[in-house]
Amino acid sequence: MTEKPAIGITTGCPCGIGPEIVSKAINDERVLSICRPVVFGKPLLYKEGRGEVESLPHPTLPLQRGGISPCECGAISMSAVDDAVRAVMTGEVEAIVTAPINKSHWKAAGSPFPGHTEYLASVSGAKNVAMMMVSPRLKIVLVTTHLALTDVPQNITFDKICYAVRLTDSFLKDNLRTHALTHSRTSIVICALNPHAGDGGTFGDEEERIIIPAIKQLQNEGLNVSGPYPADTVFWKATQGEFDAVVAMYHDQALIPIKTLDFKDTVNVTLGLPFVRTSPDHGTAEDIAGKGIADHHNMVRAIEMAVELTRRTKCHK
Amino acid sequence: MTEKPAIGITTGCPCGIGPEIVSKAINDERVLSICRPVVFGKPLLYKEGRGEVESLPHPTLPLQRGGISPCECGAISMSAVDDAVRAVMTGEVEAIVTAPINKSHWKAAGSPFPGHTEYLASVSGAKNVAMMMVSPRLKIVLVTTHLALTDVPQNITFDKICYAVRLTDSFLKDNLRTHALTHSRTSIVICALNPHAGDGGTFGDEEERIIIPAIKQLQNEGLNVSGPYPADTVFWKATQGEFDAVVAMYHDQALIPIKTLDFKDTVNVTLGLPFVRTSPDHGTAEDIAGKGIADHHNMVRAIEMAVELTRRTKCHK
Repeated sequence: MTEKPAIGITTGCPCGIGPEIVSKAINDERVLSICRPVVFGKPLLYKEGRGEVESLPHPTLPLQRGGISPCECGAISMSAVDDAVRAVMTGEVEAIVTAPINKSHWKAAGSPFPGHTEYLASVSGAKNVAMMMVSPRLKIVLVTTHLALTDVPQNITFDKICYAVRLTDSFLKDNLRTHALTHSRTSIVICALNPHAGDGGTFGDEEERIIIPAIKQLQNEGLNVSGPYPADTVFWKATQGEFDAVVAMYHDQALIPIKTLDFKDTVNVTLGLPFVRTSPDHGTAEDIAGKGIADHHNMVRAIEMAVELTRRTKCHK
Repeated sequence: MTEKPAIGITTGCPCGIGPEIVSKAINDERVLSICRPVVFGKPLLYKEGRGEVESLPHPTLPLQRGGISPCECGAISMSAVDDAVRAVMTGEVEAIVTAPINKSHWKAAGSPFPGHTEYLASVSGAKNVAMMMVSPRLKIVLVTTHLALTDVPQNITFDKICYAVRLTDSFLKDNLRTHALTHSRTSIVICALNPHAGDGGTFGDEEERIIIPAIKQLQNEGLNVSGPYPADTVFWKATQGEFDAVVAMYHDQALIPIKTLDFKDTVNVTLGLPFVRTSPDHGTAEDIAGKGIADHHNMVRAIEMAVELTRRTKCHK
């Protein structure tokens, strides 16, 4: 039997449920049976600093909280990510899983990066990254992420679509080669931006002007890409096995179908980094932080996904 | 046992699958056991003109098609709708179910109305109508319908939100009073326009400027309304019974979750008309028209929904 991989897990912002769900996850048999979790961050729950899970006692409830400023909070979670990145870049851990942060706390702590993805891209030197949401039934990659709806159309570009699709294609081909995920093939479908895919230009022309030319370019590169398909039917078709991944144009177009179908089992995977990074698909949930009631199921899913994907990384070596 | 209601069914544009699915549906035991279907339109499948189902033979395949211009096609389907409206307004039938039309054929035939909903509102004198999508797990009402995504934000107004919610509330209260639909209560939730409901103004301000004031107005009127909730999680919550209906801001925000979950069982209901009108949630599917392979399941669902809703109408009398 192969050795269990070491997975770096950050505890996220101490103001939120990150420390609690990490603490619960690293004591969960589903996690312990597949990896050696290595925790980065100030857990607040069990002890100061960082340590291997073996050295951590079970969490002691009620949880310790309070007395921490947004700036301190952001500094703690940023420093944990720094440590985790160093560990994954040096091979000390094989993947990282990040607990949620409060973006405004990173800002308060002086970070120029709005979130994990941008920061990880910068420190790892990745040129293009993309956010992929993975659930048991869907894999969806986003062309744009956190934008007001009114800003979405002008941010859909030929280049962004091409980058997102190429990263998706690489991901699927890696899975195909290594069987990291089951049923992996490489058929990618691209969502339209407008309802009914614009209905021949009646409702918007971004399909004609931007998306179709990008699809033609990608097909010329030999990629198995189709679209643009109306977004209201494409996800159902993907769940029926018609496509292996869907490339969506904006946040809610991607997140609505996957969370409506698989609310508790959707995990975030960053494509384009030189290492595996996953995260749970929820926020800091500060309204329930410190109460001991946070559900760590999604964190377990993120860790399971990270372990699955490290198998792929190993095949590369 | 009460007499089975007469349901008017139009055959839609003859260029599409409408005549075929109507023909199959009116010979389907699921339909015949609950209503007396009355067909309006030029079926092409069985005979010219209009007739009670009892007088119609089973459809004769292969279907007759071809030789019909867009203008003729639109004129046929418009005239069928005219006849059906006359029948429902005079009480000859108790509800109407419309098969899909090709909107460009209505235009070719000189109609100033883009589709059924607008035409039915006009001829019935309805001041405000709204499109509701109903599936076994969700009821979703749309504030805006067929618009380019770039035009959506400027079309979200205080008044439109209020009208949509008031129509939704009336619909739910009618159901509650008459038990036309099971598990009907009257809790309505309103979707945010922007991801994360704008995250406190970080991604768009329509929530603060328009949606929240509308919600306050509606709450002052005594309606059971909450929101705005992030659209990526609200539909899952609605499927768990947390809300009875969701009011969505734009086409794909509403259609993505309901079709991803219940692709074959989603039906369109027009709110605000003085009569019951439902329709299948698909188009003319001209690529498969005339081949005899169209699935009439969704048409059956639309007829079943119309029958359920006529019970409510009767209680009003």
